[in-house]
Amino acid sequence: MENTSLHRCDAAVTLAFSLLGKRWVGMIISTLGAGEMSFTDVRRAVTGISDAVLSDRLAELTRLGLVERRVNDGPPVSVVYRLAASGEQLVPLLSELGVWAQSNLPAE
Amino acid sequence: MENTSLHRCDAAVTLAFSLLGKRWVGMIISTLGAGEMSFTDVRRAVTGISDAVLSDRLAELTRLGLVERRVNDGPPVSVVYRLAASGEQLVPLLSELGVWAQSNLPAE
Repeated sequence: MENTSLHRCDAAVTLAFSLLGKRWVGMIISTLGAGEMSFTDVRRAVTGISDAVLSDRLAELTRLGLVERRVNDGPPVSVVYRLAASGEQLVPLLSELGVWAQSNLPAE
Repeated sequence: MENTSLHRCDAAVTLAFSLLGKRWVGMIISTLGAGEMSFTDVRRAVTGISDAVLSDRLAELTRLGLVERRVNDGPPVSVVYRLAASGEQLVPLLSELGVWAQSNLPAE
């Protein structure tokens, strides 16, 4: 029984890190926790990310249903991104990880 | 004021993912949450990790003080790893991420 329970726990954490273990994903979701924003806004908030990688990550998060992409008819036409419900649920958990990190990891 | 607060939150989450955004780290910590174990036990529990990468990750986690490495005088001599207090604090947060993932991500 214990082995089965351990195995299940691992599978869930493995699933979580199949997404969150990719560079920038946690930062992007946490940033969008502040509200709807444009591609450029996200890029500015996530220091160091390239356009190509941010584009890939937003596409993946949109495909997984964590982020919604909305086109505002213009003029000027604009595209904004915001968290869907499943992405919103992750924001407080990411904040808790941040609090843990500030208490337990050396500042870079 | 809002910008300052946003910036601080980002810095904390960035710090967290400077460690947790590395492949396998979340899995290794979560696995050691079950208790003290040998290198071989950890490798078996973290499916797919290589000896070299596990060795690197355990060294980094030990250097950061999240994991303790203990040598048991033999015979036979054995080396075991276990979570330090700062690592233990992370385990329930990783479990919450796992619960979130099972509800919100497609199984692989």
